[in-house]
Amino acid sequence: MLQNQGREMMIVTSGAVAFGKQRLRHEILLSQSVRQALHSGQNQLKDMSVPVLEARACAAAGQSGLMALYEAMFTQYSTCTAQVLVTNLDFHDDQKRQNLNSTLQELLRMNIVPIINTNDAVVPPPEPNSDLQGVNVISIKDNDSLAARLAVEMKADLLIALSDVEGLYDSPPGSDDAKLIDIFYPGDQQSITYGAKSRVGLGGMEAKVKAALWALQGGTSVVIANGTHPKVTGHVITDIVEGKKVGTFFSEVKPAGPTVEQQTEMARNSGRTLAALHPDQRGAIICHLADLLVEKKEEILAANKTDMDLAANAGQLSSALLNRLSLSPAKLNSLAIGLRQIAVASQDSVGRVLRRTRVAHNLELEQITVPIGVLLVIFEARPDCLPQVSALAIASGNALLAKGGKEAANTNRVLHELTQEALDIHGVKEAVQLVSTREEVEDLCRLDKMIDLIIPRGSSQLVRNIQRAAKSIPVLGHSEGICHVYVDSEAAIDKVIKIVRDSKCDYPAACNAMETLLMHRDILRTTLFDQIIDMLRTERVKIHAGPRFASYLTFSPSEVKSLRTEYGDLECCIEVVDSMQEAIDHIHRYGSSHTDVIVTENEDTAEQFLQQLDSACVFWNASSRFADGYRFGLGAEVGISTARIHARGPVGLEGLLTTKWVLRGDGHTAADFSEHGTLKYLHENLPVTQPQPRQMVAQRED
Amino acid sequence: MLQNQGREMMIVTSGAVAFGKQRLRHEILLSQSVRQALHSGQNQLKDMSVPVLEARACAAAGQSGLMALYEAMFTQYSTCTAQVLVTNLDFHDDQKRQNLNSTLQELLRMNIVPIINTNDAVVPPPEPNSDLQGVNVISIKDNDSLAARLAVEMKADLLIALSDVEGLYDSPPGSDDAKLIDIFYPGDQQSITYGAKSRVGLGGMEAKVKAALWALQGGTSVVIANGTHPKVTGHVITDIVEGKKVGTFFSEVKPAGPTVEQQTEMARNSGRTLAALHPDQRGAIICHLADLLVEKKEEILAANKTDMDLAANAGQLSSALLNRLSLSPAKLNSLAIGLRQIAVASQDSVGRVLRRTRVAHNLELEQITVPIGVLLVIFEARPDCLPQVSALAIASGNALLAKGGKEAANTNRVLHELTQEALDIHGVKEAVQLVSTREEVEDLCRLDKMIDLIIPRGSSQLVRNIQRAAKSIPVLGHSEGICHVYVDSEAAIDKVIKIVRDSKCDYPAACNAMETLLMHRDILRTTLFDQIIDMLRTERVKIHAGPRFASYLTFSPSEVKSLRTEYGDLECCIEVVDSMQEAIDHIHRYGSSHTDVIVTENEDTAEQFLQQLDSACVFWNASSRFADGYRFGLGAEVGISTARIHARGPVGLEGLLTTKWVLRGDGHTAADFSEHGTLKYLHENLPVTQPQPRQMVAQRED
Repeated sequence: MLQNQGREMMIVTSGAVAFGKQRLRHEILLSQSVRQALHSGQNQLKDMSVPVLEARACAAAGQSGLMALYEAMFTQYSTCTAQVLVTNLDFHDDQKRQNLNSTLQELLRMNIVPIINTNDAVVPPPEPNSDLQGVNVISIKDNDSLAARLAVEMKADLLIALSDVEGLYDSPPGSDDAKLIDIFYPGDQQSITYGAKSRVGLGGMEAKVKAALWALQGGTSVVIANGTHPKVTGHVITDIVEGKKVGTFFSEVKPAGPTVEQQTEMARNSGRTLAALHPDQRGAIICHLADLLVEKKEEILAANKTDMDLAANAGQLSSALLNRLSLSPAKLNSLAIGLRQIAVASQDSVGRVLRRTRVAHNLELEQITVPIGVLLVIFEARPDCLPQVSALAIASGNALLAKGGKEAANTNRVLHELTQEALDIHGVKEAVQLVSTREEVEDLCRLDKMIDLIIPRGSSQLVRNIQRAAKSIPVLGHSEGICHVYVDSEAAIDKVIKIVRDSKCDYPAACNAMETLLMHRDILRTTLFDQIIDMLRTERVKIHAGPRFASYLTFSPSEVKSLRTEYGDLECCIEVVDSMQEAIDHIHRYGSSHTDVIVTENEDTAEQFLQQLDSACVFWNASSRFADGYRFGLGAEVGISTARIHARGPVGLEGLLTTKWVLRGDGHTAADFSEHGTLKYLHENLPVTQPQPRQMVAQRED
Repeated sequence: MLQNQGREMMIVTSGAVAFGKQRLRHEILLSQSVRQALHSGQNQLKDMSVPVLEARACAAAGQSGLMALYEAMFTQYSTCTAQVLVTNLDFHDDQKRQNLNSTLQELLRMNIVPIINTNDAVVPPPEPNSDLQGVNVISIKDNDSLAARLAVEMKADLLIALSDVEGLYDSPPGSDDAKLIDIFYPGDQQSITYGAKSRVGLGGMEAKVKAALWALQGGTSVVIANGTHPKVTGHVITDIVEGKKVGTFFSEVKPAGPTVEQQTEMARNSGRTLAALHPDQRGAIICHLADLLVEKKEEILAANKTDMDLAANAGQLSSALLNRLSLSPAKLNSLAIGLRQIAVASQDSVGRVLRRTRVAHNLELEQITVPIGVLLVIFEARPDCLPQVSALAIASGNALLAKGGKEAANTNRVLHELTQEALDIHGVKEAVQLVSTREEVEDLCRLDKMIDLIIPRGSSQLVRNIQRAAKSIPVLGHSEGICHVYVDSEAAIDKVIKIVRDSKCDYPAACNAMETLLMHRDILRTTLFDQIIDMLRTERVKIHAGPRFASYLTFSPSEVKSLRTEYGDLECCIEVVDSMQEAIDHIHRYGSSHTDVIVTENEDTAEQFLQQLDSACVFWNASSRFADGYRFGLGAEVGISTARIHARGPVGLEGLLTTKWVLRGDGHTAADFSEHGTLKYLHENLPVTQPQPRQMVAQRED
C-alpha cells in the first residue's frame, strides 16, 4: 500500500509484535498499550520468573529489535523511520516540550515517520492510581496518555488507539446486553459501565477513554479499535482513515438524528405494534399515505425540483437517471392508485390461517401468517420507490429501514415525513425509518441480529454488492437474468418472430429480457432462420455467435466471450443445439434460473421442457417479458427472486410474510401422549376458510 | 504463532514484499516466483525506464533489505534465519550439490531457517524456452524449479508453491467453465488447458505444474495455492500444513472414489431425473428401501456391530452415544414403517399446483411445487438418520449428499448401498450420495454454487458450526432453543405444575425444553409458588435465579450468569416479571424465537400473548415439548427452523420444496398488452384442486 498520500504520521508503539502496521498512513498517531508489550514480553521470559522491575529492562532490551523491525518494514515502502524516546519530564517543561515538538515537526517535514515510545528504562514504575490531572495536564502513565498528549501537542487530526477489543462497549464486553458504541460523545460517559480492568493492565478501556476524551478536548478526533485481529490489522487503520465504521469514534458533535442501530430498534418496536393492528387499520394508514401524496404534491414536487436541480448542476446523472429521479403530478396520482391497491391486498396478508389441526381433544394447532420482522430495502435514484416499499411493508406488518439514493435525498425526506404522518394515525410512526445516505450499505448489511431480510431494488450491480456484503442476512432478489428463448424445430414462424422480438427488444435492460437465443440445428438455413436474423437486424440487435453457431457459418458475427453474458442492451448471443434436451442442458449450464422460454407447436416437447427445466419461470410460446409480478397478477411486486428457498420468481406480498404456529391447549403435556399416557394424537385436519386471491392492478415499474 | 513444532522449514523467496510469512512452519518449502518480485521491483522503478538487464541489479539491491525483513520478522519468534544464494551450477556438480545439501542440513539441524534465493546478480538471464530436462535433471530457470529441485534434494515432505491464483484450474481461470482442481494426479495432465502465460511471466502455472510434477516424482508432495490474498497469506500455509483443502494438491495416488464435487454433480444430474419421475415411482423407491431394511437386516446389523465394537474399543463414546449408534431388528422395523409413511406423503409433494391464473385468453399461469435441488444433510452418530433423510429427499425429488458421523461409517455404507439399490429400480442410483467422512464439513459448506440447502441434524454445536461455515448456502435448522414458560397471575395450579414439569423434565436435552420460567410477581409467596419449587426440587432441577427473582428472596439460589442460557439439562432459570407484557419483552430480549408458553386461565391475556409474541411456536396452556413435526401432525419431520424465511418452526416435507411458475401461451408478447396493444390482462383466478393434507404417524427421534 502506498502511504505517500501527503499524510503525516507518527507511531506511538509498544514492544508488541506489530506486523501489518506497514500500512499506516501519515497523519495518524497509532497507540498501543505498552503494558500489552510488557505482558507479552513477560510471557516469553516467564521461565526466568522476572520480578516487576525487570519489565523496564525488558523494554530496553526489546527496543532495538523492535526498531529494526519497524525500519525493515517501512523500508519496503521507501519510508524512513526515526526512534524517539520520551519521558514524563519532556512534557513538564515548556522548553523541553518545544524541543520535542520541533524535533517531531522536523522529522515529519522530512517525510520521516517518528516511532515514539516511553523511555521505560529510565522512568519510574507507573502509578496506577495517579489519575489524569485536569484538562491541560495529562500524566504519561501509559501509551494511551502518551499518544493523547502527543496528538494534542502536535495538533494531529486523528488519533487511532488500538485495543484488544472491538472498541468501547456500553457495558463490559461479553455481558448479556453489551453493545459496541459506534460514536461516543463526551456527555454520554455516565451511560457506560466499565468492567474490571482488562487483562492488559493499566492500558484498560477506562484509561483509553480518558485519554481519548482528553485528546478530543484538545482538538484531535479519536478512534478506539481492535488491533489484534491478525488478519485485518493492516486494514483496520486504512479503513478508519477511509471513514469506514470501525471501532468507536469519539466526537464532540452529536449528530442530529439517532444512529442506525437506534433506528432499527425503534423500527422493530414500532413494527411490533404495527403487526398487532387490525388489517383495516394497516389499510387505513396506506390509504392515508395515498391521500397525502396527492394533497401534499406541491411540497413533494418542490423537494423533487431541488434534487433535480442539484443533479443537473452536478451534471453527473444520465438522462435516463434524471428521468427516474423526476416526479410529476401524474406520477404521484398513479402512485396513489397503486398504494390503494396495496391497501386492499393488505386485508388478508397478516394473520391468515394456513392450516388448522386438531392435535387432540381441546388441543388445537393453527399455522398463521406473520410479518418477517425488520426489512431493509435499498433503492437507487427513483424516489417513488419509497412510498411503494413503505406501503408493502405496512401492508405486511413489517418494520422498514429504507435507504434511498443520495441524489433523491430531499424528495425522500419529504416522502418519508408523509409516511410517518400516515403511520401516526395509529401510533406507529417509527415503524418506517429513513436511513441517512451517509450510512454505508456494507455497515447496514452487518446488522445481522437486527435486520431479518434485505431487499435491494436497483441495478444488478447493487444487488450483487449487497449479496456479497450481507453474509448472515437473507437477501431477496436476483443479481442476474440470463434468460433464454429456445426455438424448437417444430416452432411456428409467426410466434417465433413475435416472441423473440418482444423478449429481446421490448425493454432490453430488464432482467427478464432474452440474452441468448438457442436454435434447433434443423432451422439453420431455413426461411425461419433468415426471418429471425432479418428481424434482429431491423431492430438493430447486435448478434454474438456461440461457438457452435459460429462453426456453421462462413462469415459469422464476433464470437461470444462467455455464454453467461447478460447484455442488458440490444445485443444477444445465438447458439445452436441439436435437440430440446441439449437446449435444457445448455440453459442449466449457462443460465441463471430466472426465466426461459420454448417456442414449439409440439405439446409433448413443450411439456418436457416445462417439466424438466429448472428455472423460476418456464414459458411455452410466450415472451420472457411476462416474468413480472404485475403481469402474473400478483398485484404489488416485491421483486423477482432467483433464490431457491422462501420465494422464487416474481414475489408478491406473501414474500414479506412468514408463519408462526399457535397451539391452544388445556394443560396438555407430551407425557400424556407417551406409551403410558392417557391420550392419543388425533391429528385431524380442520377446515380453513381459504380466501380467494384478489385480483389487482398495480403500477408498472420499468 | 508458534513454529517450534519440531518441523523443519526452508524458504525459497523472491524479492517480493512478503509480509505475513512469519507464520511459516518448519518442513515447508515456500516458493514464490522471483519474476513476480522483479515485476513489482520494475514497477517501482518504472519512471527510470530500466532495461531488462537491470532486473538483476534490482535483485542484488533488494536482497539485503529483504533479508533484513525476514530476519526481523523471524526474530519476533526467536528464530534464526540464514541467507543462501544458489545458482544453476550448484546443482550440476555432485560435489557442489553435496556441499549445498550439508550446509542446509546443518542449518536445519541448528533450527535455523534457510532463506534461499537464486543469485540473480551472477546468473545469466533466464531462457524461457529451455524446458525441464528429463526427470533427474531440472534446470533452475525460476523459483518454482529451484524450489522443486531443493525439495527433492533435501527429501522434503511437502513443497508449497504460492501463486497469484487459487491453484490449478482445468481451463484458463476466468473462462466459462474453469474449475479449481483440488487434487491433481500426474495422469490427469492431458485434461488441463493452460491459458496464455500469466502476467508473472516465466513463473506461469504451466511451469509451476511441471516443477510440481518433477518434485512429486522425487517423492515430495506439492500444494499450489494463492499467496497473494494479503489478509490470509499467513493462514494459507498453516491451513495447508493442517491438511485443509487449499489450492491444488499434487498426489501420486488417485483415491478410490469420486471427489465430492464429482459426487455433487452426479447427484444433481440424477436428481433431475428423480424429480421428473412420477410420484408413484418415487413412492415405489422409498417402499423398496423400506423392504430392503427388513430383508437385509443381517447385513446391516453386522456392519453396525463392527461400528459398535470399534467405538467400544476406542472407548471414546458415552453410553448415550453408543445407544444412538446401535441398531436393532426392532429399530429397523419401525424405520421401515416410517419410510412407508414418507412414501405416502410423497404422493402430493412435487408438482402440486398451488395457484392457477388465466392471465389472458389462452395464456395460463400455474405455480407448482418443485424440489429445491441438491441438499446436504449432515448428521452425527445415529445411522438411522441416513435412510430417513434419504427417503425425505427422494419423496421431495431432491438430490442428496449425506454426510454421516465417522463412528457409524460401516453402518452408513451398507445403508447407503441399499438406498442406491432402491433408487436403481428407476435408474436414479446416483441421486443420493454418501460423502466420505474424510471431507471437512467446512469444505462442503464452501460448495455454494453446487449445494442449495444444508440441513444439519445433530447437536446445537454442530448446527452452530455449520451456520458459521455456510456463508452463502442457506441452512435449515436452529442452533438455540431458549424456550420460556410464563406463569400468569391467573394460572390454574394443576396446569402450571403439569406444564412446567413436562416442559423441563420430559426430555431436558431437547431444543423444545424450557430453559427459563417466568413468573408473575403476584404468585410469589403463594401456594402455587411453593408447589412449583417443590416439584422442581422433587424432579432434581437445579434452579438459577434471575436478578429480579434473586432480589425478592432472602436466601436465593445462585444468580444466573446470563439470561440467555440454554442449559439442556435438569437446570433452569427463574425470573420474575410484573405483567404479561413484561414477559413478552423479556422473551423478545433474551429468547431465541423457538417456542414459548403462557399458562393462564384468562383468555384475553392468552390471546394477547399468542398474538404479540414473535416466536416460531407460541402455546397457551400446553407444554413446550409439543413443538415437534410429529406432534404437530406434519408427518416426516425435516427439522425445526428458527430462521424467519422459507420455513419456520417444525418443518415437514414442504420445507424441502420450492416453486416454479409455468406459463403456457400462444405466441403472446408483453407488447400485445401495452397501451397500444390489442389485449387486456384478465388475471382470473382458476380453481386449484386442493388435496387434503394427509394424516401421518411418523417415527419419533428423541
